[in-house]
Amino acid sequence: MKSALIILDMQNELIHPQGKVGRNGFAETAAELNLVQKTAGVAQAFRDKNLPVIFVNVGFEKGYVDAISKQSRLAHLKETGALVIGEFGTEFPEELAPQEGDLVVTKRAVNPFHNTNLLNWLTANKVERIVLAGVYTHMVVDSTARHGDDSGLFVTVLEDCCASPDMELHRIECEKILPLFGTVTRSEDFLKTL
Amino acid sequence: MKSALIILDMQNELIHPQGKVGRNGFAETAAELNLVQKTAGVAQAFRDKNLPVIFVNVGFEKGYVDAISKQSRLAHLKETGALVIGEFGTEFPEELAPQEGDLVVTKRAVNPFHNTNLLNWLTANKVERIVLAGVYTHMVVDSTARHGDDSGLFVTVLEDCCASPDMELHRIECEKILPLFGTVTRSEDFLKTL
Amino acid sequence: MKSALIILDMQNELIHPQGKVGRNGFAETAAELNLVQKTAGVAQAFRDKNLPVIFVNVGFEKGYVDAISKQSRLAHLKETGALVIGEFGTEFPEELAPQEGDLVVTKRAVNPFHNTNLLNWLTANKVERIVLAGVYTHMVVDSTARHGDDSGLFVTVLEDCCASPDMELHRIECEKILPLFGTVTRSEDFLKTL
Amino acid sequence: MKSALIILDMQNELIHPQGKVGRNGFAETAAELNLVQKTAGVAQAFRDKNLPVIFVNVGFEKGYVDAISKQSRLAHLKETGALVIGEFGTEFPEELAPQEGDLVVTKRAVNPFHNTNLLNWLTANKVERIVLAGVYTHMVVDSTARHGDDSGLFVTVLEDCCASPDMELHRIECEKILPLFGTVTRSEDFLKTL
Repeated sequence: MKSALIILDMQNELIHPQGKVGRNGFAETAAELNLVQKTAGVAQAFRDKNLPVIFVNVGFEKGYVDAISKQSRLAHLKETGALVIGEFGTEFPEELAPQEGDLVVTKRAVNPFHNTNLLNWLTANKVERIVLAGVYTHMVVDSTARHGDDSGLFVTVLEDCCASPDMELHRIECEKILPLFGTVTRSEDFLKTL
Repeated sequence: MKSALIILDMQNELIHPQGKVGRNGFAETAAELNLVQKTAGVAQAFRDKNLPVIFVNVGFEKGYVDAISKQSRLAHLKETGALVIGEFGTEFPEELAPQEGDLVVTKRAVNPFHNTNLLNWLTANKVERIVLAGVYTHMVVDSTARHGDDSGLFVTVLEDCCASPDMELHRIECEKILPLFGTVTRSEDFLKTL
Repeated sequence: MKSALIILDMQNELIHPQGKVGRNGFAETAAELNLVQKTAGVAQAFRDKNLPVIFVNVGFEKGYVDAISKQSRLAHLKETGALVIGEFGTEFPEELAPQEGDLVVTKRAVNPFHNTNLLNWLTANKVERIVLAGVYTHMVVDSTARHGDDSGLFVTVLEDCCASPDMELHRIECEKILPLFGTVTRSEDFLKTL
Repeated sequence: MKSALIILDMQNELIHPQGKVGRNGFAETAAELNLVQKTAGVAQAFRDKNLPVIFVNVGFEKGYVDAISKQSRLAHLKETGALVIGEFGTEFPEELAPQEGDLVVTKRAVNPFHNTNLLNWLTANKVERIVLAGVYTHMVVDSTARHGDDSGLFVTVLEDCCASPDMELHRIECEKILPLFGTVTRSEDFLKTL
């Protein structure tokens, strides 16, 4: 069964110390957990086996004319000018930068399948299992697992490559919610089976 | 702003004592919480104001040829012959039966927007806010709130009209996860504002 | 490459002499062209090779509360009470009835992929080529070819298993429009390659 | 009823004399018909009334890793390196350039609703009627009209702001096919009603 790695929202705005969201504490959490290096290692393992590596980020046009959600979440982004396409915040950290042949999917929603060509691309490339790494566990990772399962994909979540600002919430997701939509495992265990 | 009530998976299979899923304990939880009666009351309030009431259920053709998910969840349903369209398990409890003019949407997924005409229908009827009641909180209610928010709808969750078999999980959803995608409130408070 | 046959809107309302639409002339066209028998033969060839046969029909709840289109087309249907789910008009002619294992997809739109689980089902069943038979060529067949191509499917149209009330329009579709989205061929030629 | 103008694929690659597709004859057709100037005039009329103007283009990443269609159409694009995002071919002619506040939607498919946030955006902005100008009539304009109708939008096609390389095909679309999914009119007549 062909797997693809999907790296979710691991962009500067969220995980870099100067990111407009990450600077409030989450960049530190991500650094302590070694999220970027771990995920970069998994990405290389996929590329070494000629398996697809997909980068998802979230971004909006300057002015946010393309934003849809009514939640206050979005209002906070606008205040700080966060997540503007083409700026630092929507780019990926150097150690994890997309390489030639990787797919980059830019979304305006939490769910990376929402209004993007991600599902068609996976099908066209005969991918049957999506392997998830990213932040936050209770936001984009959860939404991706749900939509992947509803669409008939096998889902694997690499729990040590995911995090939430509230790590207790991350734990509950990994123990009680994500297992309903796929398999939750650690990256080193998963890589043995790839 | 026009609201529509969406009643999620409150079908016999899950909440009736003879339902093939509910008989394992959840029907009792639902009865203790008075879920059906409370939701029926909310539905009547919507109809009295000429606002849409939408019933969602989950169901499959006999033989499950139309099932898509790869999760073991589905295997369990097949074993007991649960959730077959046209049978008792996909019907609604008498006290909560759809009335003329209500919309019924049958889904094959967790998310009621997935591969159904629910979103087009809401738009065509100029609905801007969806109000959610249903089971389970961490499954269909959560998936609906996420998809509604990504699609630009306002979302309200009536927490006393929702439940999960593990009510601790229901509580975490209502306190920490669902507020990220909408407003969580009690039905009596919401009805005052309708 | 795995193929699936999709039989489009070949339901009594359109092709039976007593159908509320077909009785105005198109049932006669369909009979002259031997559409039902030809398509039934193709369906049997697919089943003999264990390839999927999918029946699509269009239908609405009594009262048409689930109808979305704003076109006058729909108003005409309402006037005659046509295309109501569960009635004669949404059923298939006896010679072409779905058999055990076939999938039936009921849609509310022209395009059978619109708000249905058709695409997810094709993917879950590893179908890469859709083979189209149905009516009308310039309506559902054209919409299906377009959506299939945009979704990354190979598309084959069996021109002698399709028709429009205006057969000149059918001819233009087959010569100038459908070839942009797939391959147009005759059923006897296609079956040699199956 | 709120209208939005959607300008479809009127990008350099197709309508500029140096465009990799348009240079084969279609740029000349477009010039003779005065397509760009006419459409620019309509766009200004919409902006003057504070109504949305939406630009759609088609484009791919260098390497076309994000392309999905299996049709030879795409192979021809690859040969000439056409339609690459960020290059001249995906930009709009100067006289028709997007202005601040306009929405730009980039698609990988024929249909601009396919895997984009166009429908959610229209809903979020309470648009009920889409008004279409673009090229080619039998490709993107037809696909847009079909999808708009299936989604419950009112559709108006400005026939003098649309064209196909084969203008006979354009005529058949405007007379026999597009009227099934919306209203076909001339821009000067439409503007009187705006």
